[in-house]
Amino acid sequence: MARTFDIKELVSLVNELSRGRLAMRLTGADATVTRFMPPQAAGEGDMAFLTNAAYAEAMKTSKASVLIMREQDAMALFGEELPERTILLCENPYAFFAFATQILTKAEVTVGIHPRAFVEEGAEVDPTATIEALAVVRAGAKVGAHTVVKTGAVIAERVTVGDDCIIYPNVVLERDTVVGNRCIFQPGCVIGADGFGFAPFKGEWVKIPQTGRVVIGDDVEIGANTTVDRGALEDTVIGKGTKLDNQIQIAHNDRIGEHCVMAACVGIAGSTSIGDHTMVGGAAMINGHIDVPAGSVVGPSSVITGWGDKPCQRTGFFPALEGKDFQLTVATITRLPAMRKELKALSRRVEELSALIRSTEE
Amino acid sequence: MARTFDIKELVSLVNELSRGRLAMRLTGADATVTRFMPPQAAGEGDMAFLTNAAYAEAMKTSKASVLIMREQDAMALFGEELPERTILLCENPYAFFAFATQILTKAEVTVGIHPRAFVEEGAEVDPTATIEALAVVRAGAKVGAHTVVKTGAVIAERVTVGDDCIIYPNVVLERDTVVGNRCIFQPGCVIGADGFGFAPFKGEWVKIPQTGRVVIGDDVEIGANTTVDRGALEDTVIGKGTKLDNQIQIAHNDRIGEHCVMAACVGIAGSTSIGDHTMVGGAAMINGHIDVPAGSVVGPSSVITGWGDKPCQRTGFFPALEGKDFQLTVATITRLPAMRKELKALSRRVEELSALIRSTEE
Amino acid sequence: MARTFDIKELVSLVNELSRGRLAMRLTGADATVTRFMPPQAAGEGDMAFLTNAAYAEAMKTSKASVLIMREQDAMALFGEELPERTILLCENPYAFFAFATQILTKAEVTVGIHPRAFVEEGAEVDPTATIEALAVVRAGAKVGAHTVVKTGAVIAERVTVGDDCIIYPNVVLERDTVVGNRCIFQPGCVIGADGFGFAPFKGEWVKIPQTGRVVIGDDVEIGANTTVDRGALEDTVIGKGTKLDNQIQIAHNDRIGEHCVMAACVGIAGSTSIGDHTMVGGAAMINGHIDVPAGSVVGPSSVITGWGDKPCQRTGFFPALEGKDFQLTVATITRLPAMRKELKALSRRVEELSALIRSTEE
Repeated sequence: MARTFDIKELVSLVNELSRGRLAMRLTGADATVTRFMPPQAAGEGDMAFLTNAAYAEAMKTSKASVLIMREQDAMALFGEELPERTILLCENPYAFFAFATQILTKAEVTVGIHPRAFVEEGAEVDPTATIEALAVVRAGAKVGAHTVVKTGAVIAERVTVGDDCIIYPNVVLERDTVVGNRCIFQPGCVIGADGFGFAPFKGEWVKIPQTGRVVIGDDVEIGANTTVDRGALEDTVIGKGTKLDNQIQIAHNDRIGEHCVMAACVGIAGSTSIGDHTMVGGAAMINGHIDVPAGSVVGPSSVITGWGDKPCQRTGFFPALEGKDFQLTVATITRLPAMRKELKALSRRVEELSALIRSTEE
Repeated sequence: MARTFDIKELVSLVNELSRGRLAMRLTGADATVTRFMPPQAAGEGDMAFLTNAAYAEAMKTSKASVLIMREQDAMALFGEELPERTILLCENPYAFFAFATQILTKAEVTVGIHPRAFVEEGAEVDPTATIEALAVVRAGAKVGAHTVVKTGAVIAERVTVGDDCIIYPNVVLERDTVVGNRCIFQPGCVIGADGFGFAPFKGEWVKIPQTGRVVIGDDVEIGANTTVDRGALEDTVIGKGTKLDNQIQIAHNDRIGEHCVMAACVGIAGSTSIGDHTMVGGAAMINGHIDVPAGSVVGPSSVITGWGDKPCQRTGFFPALEGKDFQLTVATITRLPAMRKELKALSRRVEELSALIRSTEE
Repeated sequence: MARTFDIKELVSLVNELSRGRLAMRLTGADATVTRFMPPQAAGEGDMAFLTNAAYAEAMKTSKASVLIMREQDAMALFGEELPERTILLCENPYAFFAFATQILTKAEVTVGIHPRAFVEEGAEVDPTATIEALAVVRAGAKVGAHTVVKTGAVIAERVTVGDDCIIYPNVVLERDTVVGNRCIFQPGCVIGADGFGFAPFKGEWVKIPQTGRVVIGDDVEIGANTTVDRGALEDTVIGKGTKLDNQIQIAHNDRIGEHCVMAACVGIAGSTSIGDHTMVGGAAMINGHIDVPAGSVVGPSSVITGWGDKPCQRTGFFPALEGKDFQLTVATITRLPAMRKELKALSRRVEELSALIRSTEE
């Protein structure tokens, strides 16, 4: 599986993938590489990278064919004159690792529509796209260049998928969903199911058809078995660069900003907006009709019922206690309002006593 | 996509859909409609409806072809003599909106079994049902009139599905499941997987085959990637008219009543019964072997470990706190039982001092 | 569906299934059985078993063809001389029930590759395995003896599945996953999707390809719509005999021990290890990079942020409160650190007053 790259070629491909935004400079002799390894374990054909200066010494003795580190760390380690070996000076070695690993592990793909795929009449599939066996593309759907729709995935009516996307097995993109470029949908996620909307009527619930769509920007990743509901009237929106982990629920009319990350099991109720660059910890629950400002941080397992204007970190979960301490503590919690009153009353009583003593003394 | 309806025809269809239970009376000239719009934005061919009397003035100046409002609201707005325009007087305009939208947005369907569907010998499919390409109906299963089984959905052995149901892509209805009429299964939901039952044996867990079924009443909707387990011996039951959102877990032997609503991410452990008309907030967790009375309300993110005989609202989650307040508060919580003792001791001490002062004074 | 067994034959099959580890002794006449029933309801052809001595009397009058109980319970009930009827003396009647029910309910299977299955060139399928219609086995995958891959399930590239497994509809086993023998995958679960790993780069998130695998031991069961992510570099591991319920999330690099049970909706963040024989209650959330010792118990809905060296039980969730009590209590909780300070200050004040009174008295 492993392919071999000339380091110059790999650097050039990473430069392309990062759209020229990752500053890199190669020093020393040419080298051939196949993979990353920790500096101590690395040998011929391996790359070792440094993200934490505390581990710099291991780089010095590493037998890796290429060392990847920040210029200032290399200077600190080796002095002004770098040694006679291949070093990639890079402003962000971890980002280099991420980009380069994407190139090293890129799966080979058989382009075209498999004879056992089901591509309905009226679907438009780019000739460079891959539609695997038993994948489905319905009428009116469009699949962009180099996009791969894997087996069992369903691209429903009038869905638009951009270029260079990967849609893993058994994903469902429901009718009218719009997807940007370079998006990844992990297996079993469902995009564009109906939002949860019902009108009360004589003790029953009458379904309100959900006529909005889901609109997903470029470079979005959606985790396995995550669900993103279509909007009621307006669209549900996931901004570009946002990454959602597994088992997440995004409700109708939510507007998730750009470059957010959400860990697994998060739930966001309807009509909430999450600002750009927000980070949400696992299993956090965010109520409906809330605006979370850009740059906010929601702690894991926290329940968010409101927010002010400013980004901040909010966290809240009950601490797990050992053995019987939990029952004891819960018993106290249910008496907290009473305790608070007692404390106030006692405070007043002490003041009275204090006054009494003072008057007695005088 | 939009179809045009004569308002009389639409009212007649809504009357049929609501089984004659929605009181309506049309006044003024005939009109032709295609959609709902907010009163301010509405124009030719649009309907505008009023649910909140605070917005009544906007109805007066609306250019909508049809206004929909309660008779008392129309009287309050226009006086006894209604203006010369088309008004639908309706006891529940929001329910009219829901029913009418169902009619306006009804998808066209190609009836019949697609040549690439997999309908096993011994399955019974009504001639008016639709089985799409790559959908599966196993031996012994029955699919009722006008029901649509979409691509990738699996109707397993001996499942019975009633009339007018929609089963979205990649749904799994496992063996022996019974489904009523007019049910909707959103993509990826799994009905009738094995309940979680094991016998402990020498430090290991021996599977107890789950031989109960899932039985689902009429007019039930199940959300995307929600799971409803089959019963251990008895059946798991979802009562008619109940609506479950996405990512919900219903365990074996649960009995969910009629006309309940549960928001996303709810979990209900085994052998619990939920009474009719109960509302459960998102991410609430309900323990096993509990009876929640009819008409109860469970707040979002609440953990229910028991209930009395009476319906009420129960809520409980830790408040999310800003910055370091969470760590501070948690540290206090772990000392709550100690604080409670301190408070009591202090109270006694103050009484002693008080007695002492009294005796000194005398 | 029900098959009839001679009780001797059934005991022999249970002995085989339990690998000779379940001590059993049959007394009395031969008998023919088809199913288990509660002792009061049991009749001809039924088996009744006793797990709780409190219900022993019902066994005495039961019309079941076979009684199953521990030897000591039989002695206590009947005295040294057992009555003239068929009794199976068994050290663990509940385990017998579990094993025997597996035999009684075993589904019949049509062995072989269905003509409408998609088995890619380069896949190895044992001739005794079953690959149903529209199931997928990709190149390089291996499917063991007597394993059943049901419709819509996807066994991706280079996956290895052992013998006697059941893979239910629409399961996805992603590339390189390794599965032991006798494993069960409930519908819709996803094994081996990418872990959630991204490198921060100029305010964006760069995907780190996940090159580890998921490795699953023998006798594991995975619930419906549960997700187990592949490792980042190392593997994610589920130890033998472990049972996971529905809607669970296991993150990359987690190491779940042997013979654990986890109830539904649990989430475990990345790089956490869970020791053998640990029990995790429903909806518990366990943070990343934690070691939970073998034999621990995590209460339902508890958030685990750390653990000591010793196994114990840890629980923590906010109690659900009725009506307005929740708002009142939450208001108090946000003032807890202040209350604690007040309590301390008041304590000091009382001590001062006490000293003052003493000095006044003297």
